[in-house]
Amino acid sequence: MRIDILTIFPELFESPFGHSMLKRAQNKGFIEIFIHNIRDYSTDKHKSVDDYAFGGGAGMVMMIQPIEDLILKLKLERDYDEIIYMTPDAKVFNQKEANRLSLSENIIILCGHYKGVDQRIRDHYITKEISIGDYVLTGGELAAAIVVDSIVRLIPGVLSDETSALTDSFQDNLLSPPVYTRPADHNGWKIPEVLLSGNDKLIDEWREKQSMELTMRVRPDLLDD
Amino acid sequence: MRIDILTIFPELFESPFGHSMLKRAQNKGFIEIFIHNIRDYSTDKHKSVDDYAFGGGAGMVMMIQPIEDLILKLKLERDYDEIIYMTPDAKVFNQKEANRLSLSENIIILCGHYKGVDQRIRDHYITKEISIGDYVLTGGELAAAIVVDSIVRLIPGVLSDETSALTDSFQDNLLSPPVYTRPADHNGWKIPEVLLSGNDKLIDEWREKQSMELTMRVRPDLLDD
Repeated sequence: MRIDILTIFPELFESPFGHSMLKRAQNKGFIEIFIHNIRDYSTDKHKSVDDYAFGGGAGMVMMIQPIEDLILKLKLERDYDEIIYMTPDAKVFNQKEANRLSLSENIIILCGHYKGVDQRIRDHYITKEISIGDYVLTGGELAAAIVVDSIVRLIPGVLSDETSALTDSFQDNLLSPPVYTRPADHNGWKIPEVLLSGNDKLIDEWREKQSMELTMRVRPDLLDD
Repeated sequence: MRIDILTIFPELFESPFGHSMLKRAQNKGFIEIFIHNIRDYSTDKHKSVDDYAFGGGAGMVMMIQPIEDLILKLKLERDYDEIIYMTPDAKVFNQKEANRLSLSENIIILCGHYKGVDQRIRDHYITKEISIGDYVLTGGELAAAIVVDSIVRLIPGVLSDETSALTDSFQDNLLSPPVYTRPADHNGWKIPEVLLSGNDKLIDEWREKQSMELTMRVRPDLLDD
């Protein structure tokens, strides 16, 4: 999979993409990530990327020209499955969407900043808008990193143990059961006895029951889907 | 505000906290962020921080000892409003929660990784569990960065123009209206005429109507709250 990220703050991606799972996925050739600085495509002499909002009000708006030129250049080079815009005023991202996007070949992710991009970019170029949740961030960069993390780990081979992603929360609409590791008794805090039984069937049943109870208590809405 | 972040991947925070709004907020003294490497507190000779899950199954579990020692040390030094654990199996973060947390004096954020932390840490030390959305990430680090970004920008004085945060999406349960900047006509794509009228009352009415229509179309659930 190839991911092209369009941003006015490319430096924000250095550490999220330079370590841990995302670094390994790139090194092993599962994904290629290209970070493009929108400012490099501005044709005005000050290399502007934003301007005041028509109609007044606080906050700057990202201009059409440099974003449009960059998108058109990329689209000439290859076909894209989706051109995504990260913005809080969109449908909210979830695991189902992560699964779907993990099957893409090429995607563009445009990161909004300030008050967002000129609406005409959204109307004419964006094929999918994603919000990662009902809260406002300084920019779309961290949100884009979240989306990339969640989809790349689903690409077969990226995680060392494939079952690891399959038993995660949400893959079956249930939250994960509690986990415990050594010591079995920590200053009197003991783990549930069943986990020491060695009986796989009993352990599976216990985990399913815990998952169901936790989901009903914390996120009953997940069970309606 | 002071924020202590507990992680086994401290390097993941370098660029999110080293640029843009979060860097300025630290430089101006609005917040202090301390990143603690949990591994530094492991007392075993291999500096282990994780171990196999009791009962079997894929994925490692973060051990009690180094996390407990670190939390106890911090709690001796000062009182904390909340000790937060980032995990997908929790209530979902939103702007209301961001507003609430932005009033805190001291908070700890523990980042889960692998299959998560030993449940006994959650039972005995964590005062609030936060999920940033219904998707699974490699670790809680990016999620913690999201929470920090969303709350720090609400601290008065952090954003250069205070009205900028107040007119964001969600502060009034509505999504933001579309924004436009120059040129007013981009190859035949024109901005809505009202924005050129100079009539503030008409512009405000247009924006309110757009906000309401967009929210009803994309996120009708927000109107039920």
